[in-house]
Amino acid sequence: MTSRCGVCCYNEAKRVAIFGGTHGNEMSGIMLVNMWSKNEAEIQRSGVMTKPFITNPRAVEKCTRYVDTDLNRAFTPENLSAPCADELPYEVQRAQEINKMFGPKGSANAYDVIFDLHNTTSNMGSTLILESSADHFTLQMVHYIKKAIAPASCPVLLNEHPLLKYSTSRSVAKHPIGLEVGPQPQGVLRSNIFESMRAIMKHALDFIELFNNGVEFPPCSVDVFRVQERMDYPRDTNGNITAMVHPNLQDCDWEPLNPGDPMFQTFDGRTIPYEGSSPVYPTFINEAAYYEKQQAFVTTRRETLAAYAIRKTEQ
Amino acid sequence: MTSRCGVCCYNEAKRVAIFGGTHGNEMSGIMLVNMWSKNEAEIQRSGVMTKPFITNPRAVEKCTRYVDTDLNRAFTPENLSAPCADELPYEVQRAQEINKMFGPKGSANAYDVIFDLHNTTSNMGSTLILESSADHFTLQMVHYIKKAIAPASCPVLLNEHPLLKYSTSRSVAKHPIGLEVGPQPQGVLRSNIFESMRAIMKHALDFIELFNNGVEFPPCSVDVFRVQERMDYPRDTNGNITAMVHPNLQDCDWEPLNPGDPMFQTFDGRTIPYEGSSPVYPTFINEAAYYEKQQAFVTTRRETLAAYAIRKTEQ
Ligand SMILES: [Zn+2]
Ligand SMILES: [Zn+2]
Repeated sequence: MTSRCGVCCYNEAKRVAIFGGTHGNEMSGIMLVNMWSKNEAEIQRSGVMTKPFITNPRAVEKCTRYVDTDLNRAFTPENLSAPCADELPYEVQRAQEINKMFGPKGSANAYDVIFDLHNTTSNMGSTLILESSADHFTLQMVHYIKKAIAPASCPVLLNEHPLLKYSTSRSVAKHPIGLEVGPQPQGVLRSNIFESMRAIMKHALDFIELFNNGVEFPPCSVDVFRVQERMDYPRDTNGNITAMVHPNLQDCDWEPLNPGDPMFQTFDGRTIPYEGSSPVYPTFINEAAYYEKQQAFVTTRRETLAAYAIRKTEQ
Repeated sequence: MTSRCGVCCYNEAKRVAIFGGTHGNEMSGIMLVNMWSKNEAEIQRSGVMTKPFITNPRAVEKCTRYVDTDLNRAFTPENLSAPCADELPYEVQRAQEINKMFGPKGSANAYDVIFDLHNTTSNMGSTLILESSADHFTLQMVHYIKKAIAPASCPVLLNEHPLLKYSTSRSVAKHPIGLEVGPQPQGVLRSNIFESMRAIMKHALDFIELFNNGVEFPPCSVDVFRVQERMDYPRDTNGNITAMVHPNLQDCDWEPLNPGDPMFQTFDGRTIPYEGSSPVYPTFINEAAYYEKQQAFVTTRRETLAAYAIRKTEQ
């Protein structure tokens, strides 16, 4: 990226990947990627090479989140530089392969854009996940998508928290972007969720085509929800949960949780309120995969980011 | 059961079991059984010994439906009579243990009642599942429960189909009854589903207490949905699904599906209508666990069963 006359210049996004099956039981992305692998017409755009790709085929085969370890946490420097060995966990081996094919992560050879398609059991709607507030290319892209699908909403989750950010599959690309669409149970394919994800991908690829064709996108602002804190379930001394997400909070992703609002309901019927000092916006509420990660939901704060104007680098 | 003066006499139901975790990722029953194992007050009734029991602890530990094979299909005569051996699938070994503890199936020593607690990703509400239209004890019980929770509804699914009936964990008891409550994703605990299941168990145990105390229940009629047919997803020659449950059918468990109504939606947007000759009532629509069983939903027909009067056998 270079900056000239107040306009950020990025190279053309010639190589784009769409990942499905990073979690093998999240069906929308798996089915879309399989469909596009057989027939690419829908994802073809002039001047863009778009590759649909199943990242964790063994987990997809078993319809499970992962085989040995969470692939979407596996793209750490340690894993990617570990000596190749058959004893490595399957997903670590797979991360190395993916890094070779689509990276190397952080290098000039890496893919320009990777979309990673996920589902959640939470009522998050069609959420876009960003990893950096300084990537004006993805900020402009989500701005474009939000406008295109309005009046339907499209929340943007920004995870650049120093402790809670994790090493995603998509982080191999120069411009990583996650799609997280729900609610959908693991192992289930719902037509409404499938079509929502498909519509977002259409607009995302349209944006890339426009950008590559030389369109300049003017400065804009983007409302995002910035990851703040992981909230765990109440647990007993053995680590077993002793309460559920309160019915007033269940399914209320992106709505404000104010100090004193009900947060958990214990099995014996007591209400545990939120005791923070100011309102937060919870999301990933009651996501199935996060029980093992000691997370009932994550809190966020609203923030408006300024996106610079962007256009492609002159050749 | 003996019949005298138009009244069916059944022995007192002194030994009752509540099974959770027959499928290790169906959380409501698992959490209720664990809770009641620590504190039985809520399930204690005079003259009844009620045992809460986790049937598939290894699957619960892994939060998966099963380890080797579906426990809720494992209670066949072949499995239960197989020579004990470490090479048997885990769930077959477990079925033999459960049959020893709560059966033997079909014998006078078997438990009187087994409740088996399940969740589904389908929008089935609080469903009771019966295995025989000739068991007037369970018919009277579901009649009692339906009245007790009205105006909330409580559909009754009757599975005595010659081909589609399967060998359930609860089939070990003289009076087996299944609870199937949804929608709830696998691996998720929702407070509303938890409380619905808990309320039904309260009324079921109340019924048993009344019965054991000598109350005579007069003849009544019970509306049930009788299992008719398994409907699979459209598939290609490799066995991969080529369509999803149509949005008009999704979440419409127990509502009539008429000839010509949309049933599936293909990935390229075509609608596949229902082509039966008369209306049916679909259920288990888009249940996660049934993709591998080649079942998109099951069709049922409405039927009204006549339940005889019942009372306990005079000692
Ligand atoms: Zn995921
Ligand atoms: Zn089940």
